[in-house]
Amino acid sequence: MAKMVSDFVIPILGGYECEVGLDALDDASVIGDLVLKSDSHAVQPIFFPGGDIGRLAVAGTVNDIAVLGAQPLALACGLILEEGLAFEDLRRVLTSVRSACEEADVSVITGDTKVVEKECLGGLVINMSGIGRGDEALEHNIKIARQYRKTLDTKWILDKNLREGDKIILSGTVGDHGVAIMSTQENIGLRNEVRSDVKPLNHMIGKILKVGGIVSMKDPTRGGLANSLNEWREKSHVGIQIQESHIPIRNDVRAACEILGIDPLEVGNEGKVIIGVVKEQAEEVLEELRSTDEGREAEIIGEATGEFNLVTMKTIVGGKRIITTPIGDPVPRIC
Amino acid sequence: MAKMVSDFVIPILGGYECEVGLDALDDASVIGDLVLKSDSHAVQPIFFPGGDIGRLAVAGTVNDIAVLGAQPLALACGLILEEGLAFEDLRRVLTSVRSACEEADVSVITGDTKVVEKECLGGLVINMSGIGRGDEALEHNIKIARQYRKTLDTKWILDKNLREGDKIILSGTVGDHGVAIMSTQENIGLRNEVRSDVKPLNHMIGKILKVGGIVSMKDPTRGGLANSLNEWREKSHVGIQIQESHIPIRNDVRAACEILGIDPLEVGNEGKVIIGVVKEQAEEVLEELRSTDEGREAEIIGEATGEFNLVTMKTIVGGKRIITTPIGDPVPRIC
Repeated sequence: MAKMVSDFVIPILGGYECEVGLDALDDASVIGDLVLKSDSHAVQPIFFPGGDIGRLAVAGTVNDIAVLGAQPLALACGLILEEGLAFEDLRRVLTSVRSACEEADVSVITGDTKVVEKECLGGLVINMSGIGRGDEALEHNIKIARQYRKTLDTKWILDKNLREGDKIILSGTVGDHGVAIMSTQENIGLRNEVRSDVKPLNHMIGKILKVGGIVSMKDPTRGGLANSLNEWREKSHVGIQIQESHIPIRNDVRAACEILGIDPLEVGNEGKVIIGVVKEQAEEVLEELRSTDEGREAEIIGEATGEFNLVTMKTIVGGKRIITTPIGDPVPRIC
Repeated sequence: MAKMVSDFVIPILGGYECEVGLDALDDASVIGDLVLKSDSHAVQPIFFPGGDIGRLAVAGTVNDIAVLGAQPLALACGLILEEGLAFEDLRRVLTSVRSACEEADVSVITGDTKVVEKECLGGLVINMSGIGRGDEALEHNIKIARQYRKTLDTKWILDKNLREGDKIILSGTVGDHGVAIMSTQENIGLRNEVRSDVKPLNHMIGKILKVGGIVSMKDPTRGGLANSLNEWREKSHVGIQIQESHIPIRNDVRAACEILGIDPLEVGNEGKVIIGVVKEQAEEVLEELRSTDEGREAEIIGEATGEFNLVTMKTIVGGKRIITTPIGDPVPRIC
């Protein structure tokens, strides 16, 4: 997929110069003072423990706008339904879109519905697009970051902004969403059902922006933590060192990953962020995060380094492991 | 479809108060000074005479933004591909997206790609979302309209703005797109191949805004002219009277419609607009339209009336026909 995007989509559609364009492959794009994001959701099954495709569509788009430091302004919802989708299922999904919107304080203001004849989508696919705008919290955040890094030359929170010494904070446990989906797809009966963490995070992010000093932020969805850290490494030209002992993983998620033969660091999350913050502000950001519901299990998991241009992890048993970009996708249609 | 949207989507997702929201069911929505639009395209086949799904996706979204009086600022492209889509076809579609963007002076600045496993979409579905902004041309247009209608209380060009006496202009021939698609779907060998009119119209619209006095504008896509005129009638609480003899229809489109058993007024267009304009400005707007490539066959086809709350058509043979909202869709997956 990444290769197809870099080989086909970017060379043909890219090249337009705006603040953050298609070529940057960041979580969302920026034109003038506006953030624009489009995300299609094809998760299977459409209802899963802890959420459904409607909640996922709202959280996915809101979070991608929020990790650039913006607040969502409005959403546009494109429904692609297959003939035969039960009206009751559609009602459930739309009600869930509505309630996730209320959580995030944003509304769907426009949309479009198309129907395809065959039963092939597993119900429906949702495209959720959205626009956002930076507010005073973002401005404050960047001002604080610049006190410690005079060379920071953007007013947005971007993948390319990470520098040696920055601390990396993870807002909570990883693997929950991917394991919830995969154990449902594979029909594995876990003793304790793992629930997806799918959640709009714009309010939590708004709070930590008010502390200030955040330079990079990502929601580790497809490809999980391993993928997101490697994207940072590549775009920021740094090394990244993390400590396994500091990465929060639920015991049941860890157990399920062993059964399923997957790495919890490579599994998608839908309610977590990783945060790159200037080291002087790291403790304060962590404290603010922990005061929120969504971030109460946050940890500083590592830092950006000047060495190696690799993501390395100190393992619990005292070794060192290189974390590479996941090849292929352990969980198809995870989002 | 209309019933499903009004019964399910609007009651659950609607209600948010912004300048033009979901409930207005206008061509696009407005929040603050921004126009937002999302449109999914599932046309079959993906390549057709005169265009393809890529060109259609750009024109569809650009035109829906432009008919509110805005100029497109940026696009977001969501691709849903089926496994088995040939790379060469993807390259052709993306190249066509690019070239339509260049025609419209807009760029795809963000996007997303998902793959579904089964071959069921007929290749791919494209969601194209976009944002736009009103410029001085729109401001000028509304200023001129207000010289003749002091009560006009919006700075946007909306379905609900039509009033008794306003002239209705059609920018060119109707039926071309629908017939091009349907004759390809049905594999009917017409003597002269009918080509789709798919085209971004923002430049043409920008020119007539500079003349001024336009109050309502629509691109008559799904359901064709018949559907668009009835939407106006309903939202503006007016009657509409048109003259059959003034409606431009290509001879080969007319002949094909007879063979296919469909009404050219009910077939979708992708490169035409209908324009409601204060009567004092109608001739000048028509003249400007005719000076453009896209609008050279424009005609004044009728006017809004105070009577009946119906769309009626004086037929060529001297009778009168009531034009109703098309029931069902003569052409599935036309856009």
